[in-house]
Amino acid sequence: MRDIFTAELAALGEDLAAMSRLVESAIGSAGRALLDADLGLAETVIADDHTIDAVERDLDERCVALLAQQQPVARDLRVVVSALRMSASLERMGDLARHVAAVARLRYPQHAAPGPLVDTFTQMHEGAVRVAQQVTTVLESRDLDLAVAIERDDDLLDRLHAQTFTAMLGGENQLTTQETVDVTLLGRYYERFGDHGVSVARRVVYLVTGDFADERGAP
Amino acid sequence: MRDIFTAELAALGEDLAAMSRLVESAIGSAGRALLDADLGLAETVIADDHTIDAVERDLDERCVALLAQQQPVARDLRVVVSALRMSASLERMGDLARHVAAVARLRYPQHAAPGPLVDTFTQMHEGAVRVAQQVTTVLESRDLDLAVAIERDDDLLDRLHAQTFTAMLGGENQLTTQETVDVTLLGRYYERFGDHGVSVARRVVYLVTGDFADERGAP
Repeated sequence: MRDIFTAELAALGEDLAAMSRLVESAIGSAGRALLDADLGLAETVIADDHTIDAVERDLDERCVALLAQQQPVARDLRVVVSALRMSASLERMGDLARHVAAVARLRYPQHAAPGPLVDTFTQMHEGAVRVAQQVTTVLESRDLDLAVAIERDDDLLDRLHAQTFTAMLGGENQLTTQETVDVTLLGRYYERFGDHGVSVARRVVYLVTGDFADERGAP
Repeated sequence: MRDIFTAELAALGEDLAAMSRLVESAIGSAGRALLDADLGLAETVIADDHTIDAVERDLDERCVALLAQQQPVARDLRVVVSALRMSASLERMGDLARHVAAVARLRYPQHAAPGPLVDTFTQMHEGAVRVAQQVTTVLESRDLDLAVAIERDDDLLDRLHAQTFTAMLGGENQLTTQETVDVTLLGRYYERFGDHGVSVARRVVYLVTGDFADERGAP
């Protein structure tokens, strides 16, 4: 019985990592669609988001089934409850990738990221991809150093988010109203993406160390 | 044993409703702070958000304790898992109220809602307050008709959100860049608030009817 449960918990961890790889692919493609004004890529991200949603549903059902059949307590119980929360964060990261792709699609054949902000959004894209890759790796390896690296990249995303406001409001770059709206939304999507990545990482840290102080949700 | 569990489930429902009343108060005050440029009210909302976060932590801990001690299965298990998800949505609704208040605070003594959009934001405020009130009532009463009313108010918030874009981009109202940024963020906060309200309502419908199709997360 215990062996079956251990195997099922391990499978749950693998599925979370697999879900994270889908999110990684989505945010990578969404950012390239944004920076290259690539309509096909944007549409792929949007169309594929339902796969991430389906994986979440499947994972959640399995968590509930595990709770019902195995009646875990103590640490095992917390692992399953944390898996429920991590899948919710990953699903939300997928939504945010879809939102970035949707802005790219709306502006096509124009570029949604205005000229003066291309560099900032390139860095945001790279930061978000790193967050997504590190989330996958931390789920696979439970390497706590990597969880710290995610926090650093989240800080970078916050700084880049602040830069978008400086660029818009500094008066040097006169953006159109449409550009201002797009930059405001895109900046927020990337910033939230980082928050959810940190949230997943903290839950992994919590599971490894048992330190509940680290576990609480999105920053 | 069964009686204790039933009593604990009822207490959980009452605590979710109490949490929802805090969210109701937060979104009401945040909207008034926004529309009246009321700094004190904005600061109260921001300072009080930690109370909602603390209620969520407490609720979640009790859900985990219930799972461990009572080992519920079938419907009872789903009630507890749903409570975990509803508390996450309510906590997020509190965050969004705080975000609205933060914009009001940043712009004080100016009004963050620009003149041409005051009417739209007044309607958004009223819609969001209705959503919050209805969420509380649906949690208290499990009245499914009310869950439908929440969906209608969420649709209204979506339409008002779309109106903000028309107003910004229609060319009739020349907003400053700062106003455009604020309107974009505020519109998104209200729109997300409605989504989370619907999410909570759907979970209540699911618990009452057992129809899983209605239960899936935020729209």
